[in-house]
Amino acid sequence: MPDTKLKSTLIPGGYQFAGVAAGIKKKAGELDVGLIVSDKPAAISGAFTQNTVVAAPVVFAKDLVGGGTVRAMLVNSGNANACTGKQGERDVIASQKLLAKKVGCAVGEVMPASTGIIGHPLPMKKLESGIGKAVDALGDGIGDVENFAKAILTTDTTTKVSAVSVSIGGQPVKILGIAKGSGMIAPHMEVMRAARPKHATMLAYILTDAEMPAAALRKLWRDATEETFNRVTVDRDTSTNDTAVLVANGASGAKINDVEATRKFRTGLEKVCTELARKIASDGEGASKLVTVNVTGAISDEAAEKIARGIADSLLVKTALHGNDPNWGRIIAAAGASGGEFDPNLATLKIVKTTVYAKGKPKPFDPKVVSKAMNAKEVALNLACGQEEGAATVWTCDLSKDYITINAEYST
Amino acid sequence: MPDTKLKSTLIPGGYQFAGVAAGIKKKAGELDVGLIVSDKPAAISGAFTQNTVVAAPVVFAKDLVGGGTVRAMLVNSGNANACTGKQGERDVIASQKLLAKKVGCAVGEVMPASTGIIGHPLPMKKLESGIGKAVDALGDGIGDVENFAKAILTTDTTTKVSAVSVSIGGQPVKILGIAKGSGMIAPHMEVMRAARPKHATMLAYILTDAEMPAAALRKLWRDATEETFNRVTVDRDTSTNDTAVLVANGASGAKINDVEATRKFRTGLEKVCTELARKIASDGEGASKLVTVNVTGAISDEAAEKIARGIADSLLVKTALHGNDPNWGRIIAAAGASGGEFDPNLATLKIVKTTVYAKGKPKPFDPKVVSKAMNAKEVALNLACGQEEGAATVWTCDLSKDYITINAEYST
Repeated sequence: MPDTKLKSTLIPGGYQFAGVAAGIKKKAGELDVGLIVSDKPAAISGAFTQNTVVAAPVVFAKDLVGGGTVRAMLVNSGNANACTGKQGERDVIASQKLLAKKVGCAVGEVMPASTGIIGHPLPMKKLESGIGKAVDALGDGIGDVENFAKAILTTDTTTKVSAVSVSIGGQPVKILGIAKGSGMIAPHMEVMRAARPKHATMLAYILTDAEMPAAALRKLWRDATEETFNRVTVDRDTSTNDTAVLVANGASGAKINDVEATRKFRTGLEKVCTELARKIASDGEGASKLVTVNVTGAISDEAAEKIARGIADSLLVKTALHGNDPNWGRIIAAAGASGGEFDPNLATLKIVKTTVYAKGKPKPFDPKVVSKAMNAKEVALNLACGQEEGAATVWTCDLSKDYITINAEYST
Repeated sequence: MPDTKLKSTLIPGGYQFAGVAAGIKKKAGELDVGLIVSDKPAAISGAFTQNTVVAAPVVFAKDLVGGGTVRAMLVNSGNANACTGKQGERDVIASQKLLAKKVGCAVGEVMPASTGIIGHPLPMKKLESGIGKAVDALGDGIGDVENFAKAILTTDTTTKVSAVSVSIGGQPVKILGIAKGSGMIAPHMEVMRAARPKHATMLAYILTDAEMPAAALRKLWRDATEETFNRVTVDRDTSTNDTAVLVANGASGAKINDVEATRKFRTGLEKVCTELARKIASDGEGASKLVTVNVTGAISDEAAEKIARGIADSLLVKTALHGNDPNWGRIIAAAGASGGEFDPNLATLKIVKTTVYAKGKPKPFDPKVVSKAMNAKEVALNLACGQEEGAATVWTCDLSKDYITINAEYST
């Protein structure tokens, strides 16, 4: 799947963006306060971390998404405002009030988010000055979107943006996604008011200028997060701050209110979310490659997902992938330990293009050829379970020494 | 807890040991075939991997433990005989037959075990010559025990032996444990015929010269593995080959047949198993330190275990421990994501001797002092949940670049 490229014609109408430097990150001049403002109140659906330790901004964001509409989305990087007690909550409210006043909206229409180190109070003077600068910097150009995309990053090495345009009733509708990932990535997010609870440190903002009812928005968002962001795993650590929202402000005038429009919008949304999910996995802390684990032929989709996650989460599989080592036994062993029903005697495993294990038996192969194929920016593991029709895809990355370097001395 | 030291007076009577080099490991001269023989048929209880992908020797070992008595325990390192299909099973039977003939016991009294790379056929010529050499080398001295302990190692850096003597009815009863660990360590072993199923690449042989009924042996073994080996985690990868057995040959003449004798034996057994569990954790692949995670005050022992495992399994916690980084937010976040009921507002966390988080609030501390205390061979994390009386201890290690080096190029 080729990546989309951000063009000004793909930026949805009615939104303004900013990213500014407020000195919250250690390195001087790095963008660390991001802001998106919708001209009109917009419908919103959100998915949030299932960690029982929840950062202060997530508590408020959940309230907002549970209730009404959104005008402003504020993000700071460099500090998670998690495990900060009552002071953390007071700081969120103070920032919401300040921003609401500057934007001219209700306090309850400001959605907060934070990402960074846990357990340190927000540097409020810096954040407040950042809010002022961000409001002044708002714009709707590519550079403004890119500044926002930069301001939400932590240990990410690249910005993550994806955008498409779909035609709804002859009108162009834009879907723009901006995300961050990198570490503490094992999204298991629950869409608010959704039936199926699930599990990320990830932030994702998907904005559209389509108009749609709140219930339709939630259903689309639940399906999309389930099949995309919740299928990414970097390190099995579920964050205190994961937040992903779908926002629809209706500025295009196009309404998503029938089966055909929904189908088209869904296709575009899934494309944006899939691209962002892949970008998050490939930019996992210390990662040198994107790994796609495809499981087919399992007894159910649920079993397939368990098996795919078991493989994607195995440190031994991830280190072998890092070393371009076609040590397929670790993949089969991880499938067996996954908790998903799996019979090694029926399974067939392909690494990139080479079948290394067929219907329960090792298949002779040239390790040098497979190792060379594994030395790539993207590696696919395809496990056919030989049971029923259950299938799932999970994205992950290799585990390198750089992951250790990045994380061994983060706070000191 | 000071480590026990192997003395000849602690070797249980009626056993002979050997470890020889058969050329199965790549490095010439490394011991890779281990053998223990009991003079008389001995009672045995076993705990085995819960991975659905099970190595061929485990299938046969389970059969043996489910039924009868054991005379000979054969181990090879360097090759796991896993994912090797029917040939793997034929190879086990051939080795059992050969050994039974040489020892003079029934084929069904030979317990096989293998550890090493998955998916390669056993080099039978080498193994067969190794069996011959091992039988010739059998002896009951300290050196013989040490050779066995060396022969079962893979990436382990040290042998793991623990031994105690307990007095039962005035008679000395010896308990000797020999284990290996290192990688693919997330034991979740089930004691055969036991009610509670649980999850290790570990091998453990605990031998005693006490005499006890099979049912009592199983109960003692289930409790001991549950509180010791099943509480070790290195990398969350559950192996295809984990095998741990308790063997009682009665050579001392002392019978474990009343409450007092059972209590004394249990205390000795737990000491040996705890010491081995700690040795496995501290010698995890690439580990520089042993980490003890103590959780108290949880709503139940089960919740405490989930929380302790969540912390011990977090890559972000393990990398911070490696860097001596008192990044306590990761510990609290891992507790919250563990699935065990946890309220961050009630919790108190101590790293080594410093309280860094008290009843839901960060407590100011000198990071340099704590970092220095973390730079030790053993580091304790104590999390008091402030709820009820549930408690659990889990042992793990830090995650270093050496783990990546060891595992990125294992098979090639």
